[in-house]
Amino acid sequence: MYISKQSFRYESEPCIVSSGVVVGPTEAKGPLKDHFDKMYDDLWINEDSFEKAQKKLMEEACKETLTKANITSEEVTFLFGGDLINQITGTSFASRTLGIPFFGLFGACSTSMEALSLAAMVVEQGAPYVLAGTASHYAAIEKQFRYPIEYGSQRPPTAQRTVTAGGAALVAPTGSNIHVTKSTIGKVIDNGIKDPFNMGAAMAPAAVDTILTHFNDFNTSEEDYDLILTGDLGQVGRSIALEWFRQKGVTLPEGKFQDCGLMIYDDEPEAMAGASGTGCSAAVVFSKILQEMQQGKYKKILVCATGALLSPLTYQQKESIPCIAHAVVIERKGA
Amino acid sequence: MYISKQSFRYESEPCIVSSGVVVGPTEAKGPLKDHFDKMYDDLWINEDSFEKAQKKLMEEACKETLTKANITSEEVTFLFGGDLINQITGTSFASRTLGIPFFGLFGACSTSMEALSLAAMVVEQGAPYVLAGTASHYAAIEKQFRYPIEYGSQRPPTAQRTVTAGGAALVAPTGSNIHVTKSTIGKVIDNGIKDPFNMGAAMAPAAVDTILTHFNDFNTSEEDYDLILTGDLGQVGRSIALEWFRQKGVTLPEGKFQDCGLMIYDDEPEAMAGASGTGCSAAVVFSKILQEMQQGKYKKILVCATGALLSPLTYQQKESIPCIAHAVVIERKGA
Repeated sequence: MYISKQSFRYESEPCIVSSGVVVGPTEAKGPLKDHFDKMYDDLWINEDSFEKAQKKLMEEACKETLTKANITSEEVTFLFGGDLINQITGTSFASRTLGIPFFGLFGACSTSMEALSLAAMVVEQGAPYVLAGTASHYAAIEKQFRYPIEYGSQRPPTAQRTVTAGGAALVAPTGSNIHVTKSTIGKVIDNGIKDPFNMGAAMAPAAVDTILTHFNDFNTSEEDYDLILTGDLGQVGRSIALEWFRQKGVTLPEGKFQDCGLMIYDDEPEAMAGASGTGCSAAVVFSKILQEMQQGKYKKILVCATGALLSPLTYQQKESIPCIAHAVVIERKGA
Repeated sequence: MYISKQSFRYESEPCIVSSGVVVGPTEAKGPLKDHFDKMYDDLWINEDSFEKAQKKLMEEACKETLTKANITSEEVTFLFGGDLINQITGTSFASRTLGIPFFGLFGACSTSMEALSLAAMVVEQGAPYVLAGTASHYAAIEKQFRYPIEYGSQRPPTAQRTVTAGGAALVAPTGSNIHVTKSTIGKVIDNGIKDPFNMGAAMAPAAVDTILTHFNDFNTSEEDYDLILTGDLGQVGRSIALEWFRQKGVTLPEGKFQDCGLMIYDDEPEAMAGASGTGCSAAVVFSKILQEMQQGKYKKILVCATGALLSPLTYQQKESIPCIAHAVVIERKGA
């Protein structure tokens, strides 16, 4: 149900009945390795192109999710997903394999929560099983947006590393105590940042705008949440966001304000300012975070996935980087 | 409300309260010229790149739509839209200008009906005003997918010409006698066509699949509709679709089965097999078709927008072309 300004409350409280995350080699060495369903020790994921590798991550994340819920892809009514590859072919081609009616989305790295919010809405409309999923692949996306990794080009310390991962969640009317209860859809926010090696700085204002709008739309505050988790602001974006919140009179306890982009790699030197990519927030939220919610660590969280809506062409045309952030509330109900 | 398999019925019957279409020079010379809101006599649309020209078509289509409804962009709760430019920057950048909370979509040329179906769903959830819009630009998209038009490359007669147009519709709970009442969301269908100069042949099976699924999900038939309108199959795709219907035992009267890609140009030699592009179905449906519905020509129509989910890269990697089609029922109620 639409609430006000930019937000929805899902009154039927759709459930996340299962989720699946499949990752590449660098993620498999990181601190979340015990939370993933499947890990590959090679960037090619047994495919002959990096794009096909990303497609396979998406397919396998969906399949892992369905296996855990013990349902077949024929029982899934819709799939919401998207990615960063031109014309989201990674996701469209995975949908061809899966054979599930498909809503293609593009919200860059915010797509995970755009997908989850729409999946919850469609379940609220009566659909029995809806998948939300996203994927990204380090080599496919670096080649798409910057340089092929084989060039070995140097990047500044503000740059982030694209995650090699696919993550999916299955939403249904009943079946678990983890519920999607609210969402806030972002506006496009552009504060004039033009540096494609500093996505965190570009995306931070969008995250702040969506989170503050969420607080306002629901007349709530950070106190209502055990965790406020942004998608992939990285070190640079997270510190900018914290400072913006302070300037706007909102003091977020640092421990409560976390970022998926800072959770997936440990001391990986290549990670620079942190992780990013359409698969980043999906890989973290649909593994470790949901598992910790089930274990009782968090009762109510706000996930705000952030996306930079640039392309190599808009950069070449000297445009600044418009960004967007979509937030979803996930709650554990009952005991 | 979700009905079965791939379909929704919108029980509150959201209204299309206004729509707007802005086009380029070739479209302005075509048979629909009296139906458009604004026409440009130059492909540049007073901008310095073709991508910015497409962005402006999207912005202006939305603004024309809002002006007719006498509401401001601040009153619009959400915008659903997308396009064919890499990372849908044409639409994202237009959303930056408009300042409307934004759901980015990618369904290639099926995006218009993907957007309209989701807009109706969000209005069903209680949102007061939701925009659905798409745009495409001949020179921007040819450059993106095939060759810059300045190269003057020759194309085979099966090729279609990308429409230069932006089209938008404003959906609201009340306010007109034109209602969005049902939708059917497509699966990705791939019959092995690999020729990017023959999109009609690639997309026809997806259109047939979605339309037959629609008939099945609602236990209805072509007799229930005054017009069944596909997005941009062109001459080749339309004749293939008619043949497929015949083979499946469904006889569609040719006059009732029309294609937007065959309506927008007259005897334009460049149009080859017909028009295409994300803006194609939006430009036809959101101008002439809605106007004719208001005038009483049609009472109930099924619009099935078709999209080819390829990219230049998937073509180079020898992939076939996966396609998708989304169908929406638009009805005139009352007198």
